[in-house]
Amino acid sequence: MTSIRDVAKLAGVSPATVSRVMNNTANVDSVKRQRVEQAIKETGFKPNEVARSLYKKSSRIIGVIVPNIENPFFNELAGAIEEECDKKGYRLTLCNSNNDLEKEKRNMNLLSRMNADGIILMTNQKEIKEEVRKCQIPVIMLDRQVGTGSEIAYIQSDHYMGGRMAMEHLLDCGCRNIVQMSGPNRFSSARQRFQGYTDVCREREVTAVTLECEYDYEDGLKKAEELIERYPDTDGIIAANDMVAISVYKVLTKKGYRIPQDIQLIGFDNINLSRLFTPEITTIEQPIAQMGQEAVKVLTDYIEGREIRRQNVFPVRLIPRETTVEKPANK
Amino acid sequence: MTSIRDVAKLAGVSPATVSRVMNNTANVDSVKRQRVEQAIKETGFKPNEVARSLYKKSSRIIGVIVPNIENPFFNELAGAIEEECDKKGYRLTLCNSNNDLEKEKRNMNLLSRMNADGIILMTNQKEIKEEVRKCQIPVIMLDRQVGTGSEIAYIQSDHYMGGRMAMEHLLDCGCRNIVQMSGPNRFSSARQRFQGYTDVCREREVTAVTLECEYDYEDGLKKAEELIERYPDTDGIIAANDMVAISVYKVLTKKGYRIPQDIQLIGFDNINLSRLFTPEITTIEQPIAQMGQEAVKVLTDYIEGREIRRQNVFPVRLIPRETTVEKPANK
Repeated sequence: MTSIRDVAKLAGVSPATVSRVMNNTANVDSVKRQRVEQAIKETGFKPNEVARSLYKKSSRIIGVIVPNIENPFFNELAGAIEEECDKKGYRLTLCNSNNDLEKEKRNMNLLSRMNADGIILMTNQKEIKEEVRKCQIPVIMLDRQVGTGSEIAYIQSDHYMGGRMAMEHLLDCGCRNIVQMSGPNRFSSARQRFQGYTDVCREREVTAVTLECEYDYEDGLKKAEELIERYPDTDGIIAANDMVAISVYKVLTKKGYRIPQDIQLIGFDNINLSRLFTPEITTIEQPIAQMGQEAVKVLTDYIEGREIRRQNVFPVRLIPRETTVEKPANK
Repeated sequence: MTSIRDVAKLAGVSPATVSRVMNNTANVDSVKRQRVEQAIKETGFKPNEVARSLYKKSSRIIGVIVPNIENPFFNELAGAIEEECDKKGYRLTLCNSNNDLEKEKRNMNLLSRMNADGIILMTNQKEIKEEVRKCQIPVIMLDRQVGTGSEIAYIQSDHYMGGRMAMEHLLDCGCRNIVQMSGPNRFSSARQRFQGYTDVCREREVTAVTLECEYDYEDGLKKAEELIERYPDTDGIIAANDMVAISVYKVLTKKGYRIPQDIQLIGFDNINLSRLFTPEITTIEQPIAQMGQEAVKVLTDYIEGREIRRQNVFPVRLIPRETTVEKPANK
């Protein structure tokens, strides 16, 4: 591999001069500059990225920490982040915390020691707050808020409106005995959706019935069994997210219920899978790709010294599909 | 942040001495060594990972290039790789090539300039061969073979046996008009499975009927329409993979076919989704997690100077589920 010394030798200058030309950090007379540029061309010299990051104090690396990469929602977010990083000339270092607080802390520490330019953090851990505060590189919170404001910005969608929309849609579909499978109460997203749901219940004078459920398929299976046993006259279910909707569908069809004829069902997220599934799942869309892009945009704007917006809340949208049927009167 | 200079000052030695102690690269008398170790402790000095990688010529970074991170198969592989890297103390830099040859080349180039210790490459591009040959850091091919042997090792599953097993299973389930939706003929995996399928056809004296299909959901929808139009008496379908099986299921149910009563269906891969789907999809399992772990093991063994095996072919396994029904006689 060509080194900076080879270039310097060919150009008849010192390695320091080559570095000055390449990084544009000091004046070099134009004759020498030309000789260096010619030598770089001839040797095909590629500056070593690690050496460059030391010099420039920027590694062009963005660290992304996800709670679980195999969860389609985070996976789609990571995909959007990677694409945007690539467009902007940053590399992405992906860390999977597996919902393990210690691993999350270790990852933040390592990314900071790697000279990453910043971190996009998706976390379920409230306790990470302190780590975010101490972190020596900028941190963006994506999808979840945990902090006391030590992150430089956060990006999430409008969970409150999502909670409202899901309930309003099921009512418009004629459901009267609706159960909300809320996400875990320890997450702000779940609390905000619950608030939206109960506000609609109050306004439309229906009783709120809620069952807490993790945002995952396995717990969805368990809670769906419990739901249908405790509330056998249910005719509408708001699943905690699309993965939970998929598990509810499985449990109910095994028990002989038809969806949407007997029980209508709505998810949350609009992961790709909700469209690929048969029947296609009605859901509340979070703009996953846009949120991922925005996280990279805000972070790189910050890194490169541009102004940023601290709070970024994206609107959600109802996507009616095959697991619900709106009554003609409401169309 | 504490620098090496701060540590040196406190210990009353030169920064070079601190570096020698930390990296254990030269003899330092024991009194100085103790003073340095004490100073590191007192200052809480954390060596900068980038600086260390320059020095040690190892960045502890492994680059992973996937053709499409949102494809569940690659996503699950990436998840397994990340977990194993973490266990072994390596960071993972994830690149998504989006099946774009130029982006793939750019990624390989960048990873090499970043001083990554090696690359785990999943690719659909035959043309990448030359890039692998020229690459200055070790490359492992995962899932696909493209090379002329310039990769240091490859890891894949036994596609030939997979092709055989799928066909044998449908025959054991009593199907007589079986269509194989083969993967794209440009991929070795598809050619090997096709070979397995046709060998069984010859042995069991059935006519081979094949329809080429990309390994993705969208093409699956299109090819399923074509299949059922061209071969209306089909009673068994071997889908190119699980995503294609999910699209076949959608097309067939929309047309009023019942699965498995009218047409039996088998996928390939055993992605998580094949179990979460309703009905649960019969499939040929590739040991995804093990393959990802093995890729990291082989690469790090190579990096750390241990002996490695160049060819790593994992056995596949039939996972009978709800889209096929074995005849009692065969049980």
